[in-house]
Amino acid sequence: MDFYNDTTLRKYKFEVPEIIFGRGMLSQVGLCARRLGGRKIFLVSDKGLFNAGWVDLVMRSLVEAGLEFVYFDGITNNPKDLEVALGAREYLRLGADVIVGLGGGSCLDAAKAIAILAANGGSIRDYSGSDRIIRPLPPLVLCPTTCGTGSDVSQFAMITDTEHHCKMTLMSRCIAPDISLTDPDTLATLPHEYVGTSAADALSHALESVFSIASTTLTDVHAFKALRLLSASLPRAVQEHRPDDLENLARASLHSGMAFSNSMLGIVHALAHPIGGLYDASHGSINAVLLPEVVRYELPVVTDKLQELAWGLGHRSNGDINAAGDKIQETLDALLEASEAPRSLRSIGVLHKDLPELAQRSLKDISLTTSPRDADHADLLSILEKVY
Amino acid sequence: MDFYNDTTLRKYKFEVPEIIFGRGMLSQVGLCARRLGGRKIFLVSDKGLFNAGWVDLVMRSLVEAGLEFVYFDGITNNPKDLEVALGAREYLRLGADVIVGLGGGSCLDAAKAIAILAANGGSIRDYSGSDRIIRPLPPLVLCPTTCGTGSDVSQFAMITDTEHHCKMTLMSRCIAPDISLTDPDTLATLPHEYVGTSAADALSHALESVFSIASTTLTDVHAFKALRLLSASLPRAVQEHRPDDLENLARASLHSGMAFSNSMLGIVHALAHPIGGLYDASHGSINAVLLPEVVRYELPVVTDKLQELAWGLGHRSNGDINAAGDKIQETLDALLEASEAPRSLRSIGVLHKDLPELAQRSLKDISLTTSPRDADHADLLSILEKVY
Repeated sequence: MDFYNDTTLRKYKFEVPEIIFGRGMLSQVGLCARRLGGRKIFLVSDKGLFNAGWVDLVMRSLVEAGLEFVYFDGITNNPKDLEVALGAREYLRLGADVIVGLGGGSCLDAAKAIAILAANGGSIRDYSGSDRIIRPLPPLVLCPTTCGTGSDVSQFAMITDTEHHCKMTLMSRCIAPDISLTDPDTLATLPHEYVGTSAADALSHALESVFSIASTTLTDVHAFKALRLLSASLPRAVQEHRPDDLENLARASLHSGMAFSNSMLGIVHALAHPIGGLYDASHGSINAVLLPEVVRYELPVVTDKLQELAWGLGHRSNGDINAAGDKIQETLDALLEASEAPRSLRSIGVLHKDLPELAQRSLKDISLTTSPRDADHADLLSILEKVY
Repeated sequence: MDFYNDTTLRKYKFEVPEIIFGRGMLSQVGLCARRLGGRKIFLVSDKGLFNAGWVDLVMRSLVEAGLEFVYFDGITNNPKDLEVALGAREYLRLGADVIVGLGGGSCLDAAKAIAILAANGGSIRDYSGSDRIIRPLPPLVLCPTTCGTGSDVSQFAMITDTEHHCKMTLMSRCIAPDISLTDPDTLATLPHEYVGTSAADALSHALESVFSIASTTLTDVHAFKALRLLSASLPRAVQEHRPDDLENLARASLHSGMAFSNSMLGIVHALAHPIGGLYDASHGSINAVLLPEVVRYELPVVTDKLQELAWGLGHRSNGDINAAGDKIQETLDALLEASEAPRSLRSIGVLHKDLPELAQRSLKDISLTTSPRDADHADLLSILEKVY
């Protein structure tokens, strides 16, 4: 079984920020911000992390590095246009010069959007889409505290348009941060339900990256590594919250983020974004619901990668493609069960009457462009029906 | 067989430049240089690439991007302090602002050293060692044209001190280029002997990275991918020079460069540097000679990785560590035979009387610090004797 005939792109770009990883590394945030030229740091985080003491740790590190800072926590799940507009105003009013984001995907995406607005002005809606940012952003240090976002390494940010009740995709090489700093210690205080749902998010990032028509050998090595880490550690991490397993999930999140940032995603995310825009449900939960059915839809066209995929998920394949496909689907189901994430759209509050509109909106999502299998409105609706 | 219990560092940094890869991508060099703010480009290459037409292609791309350029080809194999000093003087005299390197490791290391001197002044000897560069370098675009250097992504440059007949290691995060651009088409004109010897260089980078005590999951995924590509494509690439196989070697070089730049190397390179400094022999050839014996020396202490390593080299292991070690050694020998690289120090002109002095100099090489097994003068001399 050799995998050198990669069915991946032959011409590509690959870009990731400087990466720092390890327990206790949060104490290095101050040095990172200073190295990037900061004097007054705009620290974006949330109440949960404040109460858990992690914000204190970052503040102390900023002070020890001789830096001033201001603290901003006006961000909610599925961060909103109005929240990031307020953040940018505060950044400018207070004369900050470096942004540090500490949190899950919502915090980190918001930190990116604040950076865009602070440097470029206007409304965040002006930057929806690909490469619409003109002026360089202030330096960014992003510290993920869940095991799934990938925002800390990615060239994407998702912001909710509160007027049109939809998620905007902001996509540009320049919104990848300068430094991605992961401290797996922070996972010790992650609420139980987020361990599984954010790991399910990482799982969907890794699988969609492997399946993406823009995947390359540089993205595949990271996506497969993420799958191996997840299949080995996800169930025990959710059950027992042991530091070593949580650390492996943090590592999986990092690897899958490096992969999908450069390969883009597919149907799972094309469907998840409109749902998140309309219902304010957790992104990881939505992905967990969609993933098995999308994989079932796409597996028939990704035969070249099935064996390595089965291997990544822990099966020693005998070369039988159908058997490999079945194994992948089984393992995926088992992992999602273990994640304790919701398994149906109904259970996360989606109304059945909205499915046609959700399928319609997905057709315009940029993630659809890298799906290995085309999907029209009927195909997308059929997937939504099956997971309802 | 699961590999999630990586025996790698738990706290680490990982940094790679922006990467562009693909046939025909050399025509994008002008756009890259312009994007980095360049107006007058200092193009470093050599006569072989000029005669093969690749320099023309880059020049045309610079002109099409509306850029001026100056061409500098005063670099020899194992680039010398005096050559890079001349290059830096020319860069400053002509008022250039971006450096493009096109060539093998010698050209690319020289381009880095010219950038250091142009921005920081003094003698290149002042920057020998770790992190001794103060002022930021001019933007760098490095385009490798062999299948082994890794200089296009690495944080290292090797320059020969002509006074002391030794190689200096310049090591700093700031000498990784802004952009690494690989166009595998250039391998079509690589002289036959360099296909095998530069691939042997990539092989040594990948293996030393896997063995390094500073390896991480982020470096391992790339090192193992490089090994898989090399074991699949090296023999046929050397025999038949088919574009697909050569492209896989270029890919292997990139992956192994991303790995070793962040994990550092080991005894092979600690021994190879003094030999290259004293004898001006090709770096790939020296590594090919040293590699099997160093692997034999280190294998007993890297048992945790042997199975994945054997798997990377194409063997389906049954879990027997000793069998895995034997397989690795066999495959390595077969690959080096196929590379047609020299297999003894004698055959590359090393004098037997110099071995004790070479071992002595290796003790001071920074690569020795990440070897998984300690080595004193007697150990190093014994390795040199065995491969004499």
